[in-house]
Amino acid sequence: MADLKSKFLKVYSVLKEELLQDPAFEFADNDRKWVEGMLDYNVPGGKLNRGLSVLDSYKLLIEGRELTDDEVFLSSALGWCIEWLQAYFLVLDDIMDGSHTRRGQPCWFRIPKVGLIAANDGVLLRNHIHRILKKHFRGKPYYVDLLDLFNEVEFQTASGQMIDLITTLEGEKDLSKYTLSLHRRIVQYKTAYYSFYLPVACALLMLGENLDNHVDVKEILVEMGTYFQVQDDYLDCFGDPKTIGKIGTDIEDFKCSWLVVKALELCNEDQKKLLHENYGKADPTNVAEVKALYNNLNLQGVFEDYESKSHDKLMAAIEAHPSKSVQAVLKSFLSKIYKRQK
Amino acid sequence: MADLKSKFLKVYSVLKEELLQDPAFEFADNDRKWVEGMLDYNVPGGKLNRGLSVLDSYKLLIEGRELTDDEVFLSSALGWCIEWLQAYFLVLDDIMDGSHTRRGQPCWFRIPKVGLIAANDGVLLRNHIHRILKKHFRGKPYYVDLLDLFNEVEFQTASGQMIDLITTLEGEKDLSKYTLSLHRRIVQYKTAYYSFYLPVACALLMLGENLDNHVDVKEILVEMGTYFQVQDDYLDCFGDPKTIGKIGTDIEDFKCSWLVVKALELCNEDQKKLLHENYGKADPTNVAEVKALYNNLNLQGVFEDYESKSHDKLMAAIEAHPSKSVQAVLKSFLSKIYKRQK
Repeated sequence: MADLKSKFLKVYSVLKEELLQDPAFEFADNDRKWVEGMLDYNVPGGKLNRGLSVLDSYKLLIEGRELTDDEVFLSSALGWCIEWLQAYFLVLDDIMDGSHTRRGQPCWFRIPKVGLIAANDGVLLRNHIHRILKKHFRGKPYYVDLLDLFNEVEFQTASGQMIDLITTLEGEKDLSKYTLSLHRRIVQYKTAYYSFYLPVACALLMLGENLDNHVDVKEILVEMGTYFQVQDDYLDCFGDPKTIGKIGTDIEDFKCSWLVVKALELCNEDQKKLLHENYGKADPTNVAEVKALYNNLNLQGVFEDYESKSHDKLMAAIEAHPSKSVQAVLKSFLSKIYKRQK
Repeated sequence: MADLKSKFLKVYSVLKEELLQDPAFEFADNDRKWVEGMLDYNVPGGKLNRGLSVLDSYKLLIEGRELTDDEVFLSSALGWCIEWLQAYFLVLDDIMDGSHTRRGQPCWFRIPKVGLIAANDGVLLRNHIHRILKKHFRGKPYYVDLLDLFNEVEFQTASGQMIDLITTLEGEKDLSKYTLSLHRRIVQYKTAYYSFYLPVACALLMLGENLDNHVDVKEILVEMGTYFQVQDDYLDCFGDPKTIGKIGTDIEDFKCSWLVVKALELCNEDQKKLLHENYGKADPTNVAEVKALYNNLNLQGVFEDYESKSHDKLMAAIEAHPSKSVQAVLKSFLSKIYKRQK
């Protein structure tokens, strides 16, 4: 797979060059410099898991046979479209959350000469996806399905972001809104569709599949994405900051985390009172109170139980799937995240 | 046409209801309230010229015959997609420009409970366009062309916005960058494509036309959009605030206005020095110096000359067009803006 990764990385430079020469806009040198700097700063710096998984999934779906150069390029291009989509969301999310760092560097809008121009750069990133799709897939029989797929997943992600934002609204801090069903909706729409379903759906479309025949695959991947985000919520509080590369602040930020939702579910009246008094405050003593309550409620044990149950449930669903190659794709996703420490 | 406008307005409520029932997302009551409030605040409050012109253009293109209810609904839906696109750009532009009012009310992001959530609302507005297109045009032979059209025009508008933003960059105020060619690129990409070309292109697609055969129409409409923006620049300084409904601040804001570009073209060394010293400063005495220079250079006369020349040039191009119905569309656009005072 290391070989595939190096091929994947090469495709980025090709796509970037094409975007800088796009005939739909008259670039001046300054504009090219700006766009190139913006792309290099925001697109390739992540773990690239989502993008690479299009390539990996496609390879598993065609079962062993070597990929042609064309197949490598096209599946990589779709993978990069997902990385572009991610970059677009992150640039805008960082503005909305007032974040400071991202991927170990200042958020794009924190760069003095950029500022709120970052919002328009986010829009450009989003538009680049369709420039890439048009240039390389316009003639394909699945082109229109590809456009519909990216549009629907973008809509679902933005809708998930919306419920996350309006439930975390400053001034209306109300823990009673935080239920398992709200948590599930936030993570399913904000994360699962674009991170887990989209890469596999891209690979299926390239193989000429009709996505309406793969609702079961979608459900499994969305379930996996939800499990992935629950891990994220868990690691934010109980993970090793050195390993996960950041110090979690979900408690301070009044986040609708799986942990607080579980705590609300399990706690008695006194503990609920304590949670309402201490959750969403920056003061370390408040945070410590919440963490102590999490321990009293044995949320680590509750999580481990959830983790193994989810794993078994997902495995059963995967092995019930008729296609061995689809099973291989889903198992490779699951194996990458099961019991992850970061 | 008044009858058509009332039909057009009715379509908004239909589209809004459909979006609030979109099966691609699980809405809770709160979410529906938020989206409905956001739409009513940002989408229908403008002059609706762009949206209505799809309907008007379609009617002129089919030459007299009464529109069927289906034709009225579909051309109105496309018109509303353009209004949604406009709302999306305005919500984000106001954040980037730090504006205070829009269409006689506070900018959306200035509403206390909204704030920077407005950025995600902008993204939602943009996504609604594709939800509307998918619901009502998915089966049409021109569906894919419609998606490509909206994607390309959005890309061009965002690119125009980019050059406007990076040339007006704070701290780098440099008048020497302001040339007629930069001004033309900004207005052509930021305004002309989506305001003038897009509505007619939508009507042409509905009639089964191949847009590649209408490059001449595109060129005329982009030319008209450029002329429209030059009028805007002119009225910002010389228009009657009571009539145009705002007090222009292009001089204070260091905007790349047609007026300053012309002034730079016509002025001598002393006048250029004066311009460099006074342009882009908030102090009324600096603004007065610039306006005095505009008068010394007789920019009103220069504009009137530009206006009549543009009109004649556009008219000649229109009358050279083989189709009388296309001529009618183009003439109706031109008549709406020629010598406009607001």
